[in-house]
Amino acid sequence: MLKICRRETFNAAHRLFTPGLSDEENRAIYGPCSNLNYHGHNYVLEVWVGGEVNQETGFVMDLKVLAEIIHEEVKDPFDHRNLNLDCPEFANLNPTAENIILVIWKKIRPRIDAAYSLELRLWETDKNSVYYNGAN
Amino acid sequence: MLKICRRETFNAAHRLFTPGLSDEENRAIYGPCSNLNYHGHNYVLEVWVGGEVNQETGFVMDLKVLAEIIHEEVKDPFDHRNLNLDCPEFANLNPTAENIILVIWKKIRPRIDAAYSLELRLWETDKNSVYYNGAN
Amino acid sequence: MLKICRRETFNAAHRLFTPGLSDEENRAIYGPCSNLNYHGHNYVLEVWVGGEVNQETGFVMDLKVLAEIIHEEVKDPFDHRNLNLDCPEFANLNPTAENIILVIWKKIRPRIDAAYSLELRLWETDKNSVYYNGAN
Amino acid sequence: MLKICRRETFNAAHRLFTPGLSDEENRAIYGPCSNLNYHGHNYVLEVWVGGEVNQETGFVMDLKVLAEIIHEEVKDPFDHRNLNLDCPEFANLNPTAENIILVIWKKIRPRIDAAYSLELRLWETDKNSVYYNGAN
Amino acid sequence: MLKICRRETFNAAHRLFTPGLSDEENRAIYGPCSNLNYHGHNYVLEVWVGGEVNQETGFVMDLKVLAEIIHEEVKDPFDHRNLNLDCPEFANLNPTAENIILVIWKKIRPRIDAAYSLELRLWETDKNSVYYNGAN
Amino acid sequence: MLKICRRETFNAAHRLFTPGLSDEENRAIYGPCSNLNYHGHNYVLEVWVGGEVNQETGFVMDLKVLAEIIHEEVKDPFDHRNLNLDCPEFANLNPTAENIILVIWKKIRPRIDAAYSLELRLWETDKNSVYYNGAN
Repeated sequence: MLKICRRETFNAAHRLFTPGLSDEENRAIYGPCSNLNYHGHNYVLEVWVGGEVNQETGFVMDLKVLAEIIHEEVKDPFDHRNLNLDCPEFANLNPTAENIILVIWKKIRPRIDAAYSLELRLWETDKNSVYYNGAN
Repeated sequence: MLKICRRETFNAAHRLFTPGLSDEENRAIYGPCSNLNYHGHNYVLEVWVGGEVNQETGFVMDLKVLAEIIHEEVKDPFDHRNLNLDCPEFANLNPTAENIILVIWKKIRPRIDAAYSLELRLWETDKNSVYYNGAN
Repeated sequence: MLKICRRETFNAAHRLFTPGLSDEENRAIYGPCSNLNYHGHNYVLEVWVGGEVNQETGFVMDLKVLAEIIHEEVKDPFDHRNLNLDCPEFANLNPTAENIILVIWKKIRPRIDAAYSLELRLWETDKNSVYYNGAN
Repeated sequence: MLKICRRETFNAAHRLFTPGLSDEENRAIYGPCSNLNYHGHNYVLEVWVGGEVNQETGFVMDLKVLAEIIHEEVKDPFDHRNLNLDCPEFANLNPTAENIILVIWKKIRPRIDAAYSLELRLWETDKNSVYYNGAN
Repeated sequence: MLKICRRETFNAAHRLFTPGLSDEENRAIYGPCSNLNYHGHNYVLEVWVGGEVNQETGFVMDLKVLAEIIHEEVKDPFDHRNLNLDCPEFANLNPTAENIILVIWKKIRPRIDAAYSLELRLWETDKNSVYYNGAN
Repeated sequence: MLKICRRETFNAAHRLFTPGLSDEENRAIYGPCSNLNYHGHNYVLEVWVGGEVNQETGFVMDLKVLAEIIHEEVKDPFDHRNLNLDCPEFANLNPTAENIILVIWKKIRPRIDAAYSLELRLWETDKNSVYYNGAN
C-alpha cells in the first residue's frame, strides 16, 4: 500500500451565496466571498491514489494517466471558468472549497480503479485548504 | 540606498478582451482568458521602496505604514472583486497583468515620498508575473 | 467527513533547556538551541478541523471563525513573544516543537465543537515540523 | 503519539526501464523517463517519526539524530549519484519514485526504534510525489 | 518599459568536469558534481522580457508565445536529457549553471524582438541560482 | 557579467528599540517588535556575486567557497543567537532588517574579490524583506 500524488492547478471565478437569502444575509455568512460580481482563485489540487506497486512497471499507477484524468475531469471543465455560471455541477450548489472538493471526488472516483484508495487536497489560497478521502 | 519590500495578496476575478472585437477574435488573442463569464486569480504583489536608512529608527520606511498603503490602495478596492465590473480603473482598460501593475503604480506612487524609489512585482500565477519600476 | 485547514504564522523567541542541568549538559542534549540568550523562529501552524459539511452553508466550519480562534489562542499570546519568559504555559515546560504543539492543542481543542476532529501541524523551520491529532 | 518530521534533499540521475523490453516498448510505458542517457531530479524527502514525547527532553526523538540517519542512509549514498549505475539497490530495480521510497524505507526502518511509527514522503518534482508508511 | 516573466522547468542530468584533468583534479574543483555517472536537477527557469505595453492588447508580449519559445528552445531539447551526452551545446562545454544560462540566452535572444530586453534566472537547486541579462 | 546566488538561513532572536526612549515610545515606533523579552525569525539570506565566467571552470565563483564565506561571516556568528545580546555588531545598533543587511554587507564585501559585484537580499518573514547592493 503506497500512495502516489499528482498536483495540478486551475484558475476560476466563484461567488458564495445561499439562494433565497438577502445580500445582507449572505454577506453576514460569507463576507466578501459573497460579493455579487464574483472573485477568483488559483486553485491547487493534489490527487492521491493508493495501491500496490506493479512489479513490472514499478508504478502504483502511471502518473501521466492520472494527470490526464485530472485534466479531463477538473482542468478542462473548471480552468478559466466561472464555477457558478459555467459549470453545471454548481448550478444549484454553493461553490465553497468543501463543495468543490466533493464534486471533484465524484468526478475522479469512478475514473480510478476501485482497488485503489483516493484522497484529495484542495488549496483555495495559501492559508485555506480542504481534504477529503471519501469517508462518511 | 537600500530597498525594503512588502508582500501582500488579493483574490480577484477578471476577463481579458478588446471591446469591439468579436468573441472569436478575442479568443484568438487572449485564449481562455477571454471566457465570457470571468475567471480569477490569487494575485501576489511585492512593493519595493528604496531610500536611505533613517539613523534614528533603522528603517527606510515603516513596513506597517507601507502595508497600510497597500491595503488602502490595492487590497481594499481589488480583493474579492471583479476587476472588470467592480473597479472603475478597469472600466475602459483591459485588466492584463501589465495594466493591473500600471494601475497599482499610479495609485501607490503618490503615496510614497518622492525621495524614495518604487518598484512593483505582481504574480498572476506561479508561472506568470510582471515587473514595473516607473521607467519609460 | 471532510477536513478544512487554516494556516497562520507567529514569530517567537525560545530557548531549550532542562532546569537543573548544567549549560554543558544542556548543550549536549539541545545543541545551539540551548544558547543562553534565546534564538527564534517564524513558526507556521496548520489547524485541521474535520466534520460534516453543513448543507445550508457548504462549510464544515467558517474559516473566519477558525482564524479568530487561532488568533485568540495562539497568535495574540505567542506572536512577537519569548515563549520561555512571556508565556506562562512554558514557565515550567521546555518549548520544544513537540511541547508547543501540545500546548496549542490544549488551547484550541476546547474551542472546537467536540463533534469535530482536530489535527495540528507546526513548522519550526522548513526542515523541522511536528504533527499532533490528540491520539494517545 | 506525536509525529516529528525532518526534510532533506538529494540530487540524483536515473532512468526508468524494464530490462528485456525494447527501447520503443520502454518509451511506450515510461515516456521520456526512459531516455537512454538518464535525466535527473532534486528529490525532496520527508521522514516522519511518531511516538511518545520524552518527558525529560520534550523530544519524540532528537531531530539531529534523525538528520544523521537520513544523511547516512539516503544522502551519502544517493546524493549526486546515478541511481541506476552507482547504487546497488537499483542494480536490478527500476528507480521509480515508488521503488525509491520503498528502498529508503528498508534502509531507515531498522535505524528507528520499533516503538516508533515511520512515514515517508518523497517528491520527484513539484507535481509528482509518493508516500509510504509500511502498510501492506 | 515593463517586464513580463514566464517560469518553466526542465529535469536533466549532468556532470561537471574539465577534459584533460584527472578524476582527482576534477573532484578537487567540482566536488561530487564531477561524479562520473552523472547526477541531476529539477531546473527552474525564469525568462523576463521587457518592453512597451501594446495599447491594443495590454500585453508586452503574449505569454503563450513566450512559453512556446521556451518550450522549443529549452524544454524540448533539454528536458529529460543528459546535458553532457544528449545536447550538442554541451559537447565541448562544461554544463555549469553559468554555462547553461549562457546557452539558453543564445537560443532565446534571437527569438525575441530586439526591441525587447531579455533577462534570465536559472535555479539548479533551492540554494543555487544564476542570473544573466546579456551585459558584458 | 553573470551573477550567481547562494541562499542560506539563520534563526535568531532580536528586539527593536531606540535607547533612551521609553517603552511606550518604542512601542509607538516599533510595535510588538519592541517587546522587551525578544522574539525571533527564520532569516533567509540570498548573496549574489556578479562577474565574468572563468573559462576553465565555467564558474563565476565556486558556490562552495561562497557558502563557506556565508557560514563564517553570517551563519556561525548569528545562527541560534540573540542579535542584541550576543552579537557585538548590534551592541549599539538597532537590529532592523535594514541594519542587519548592512552589517552582513560589511562582513561579506571584503571577503569577495573587488572585481565582483555583490548584492544581498534578506527575508525576515515571507512578507518582509530588504535588498542592498552597496549603492549610496
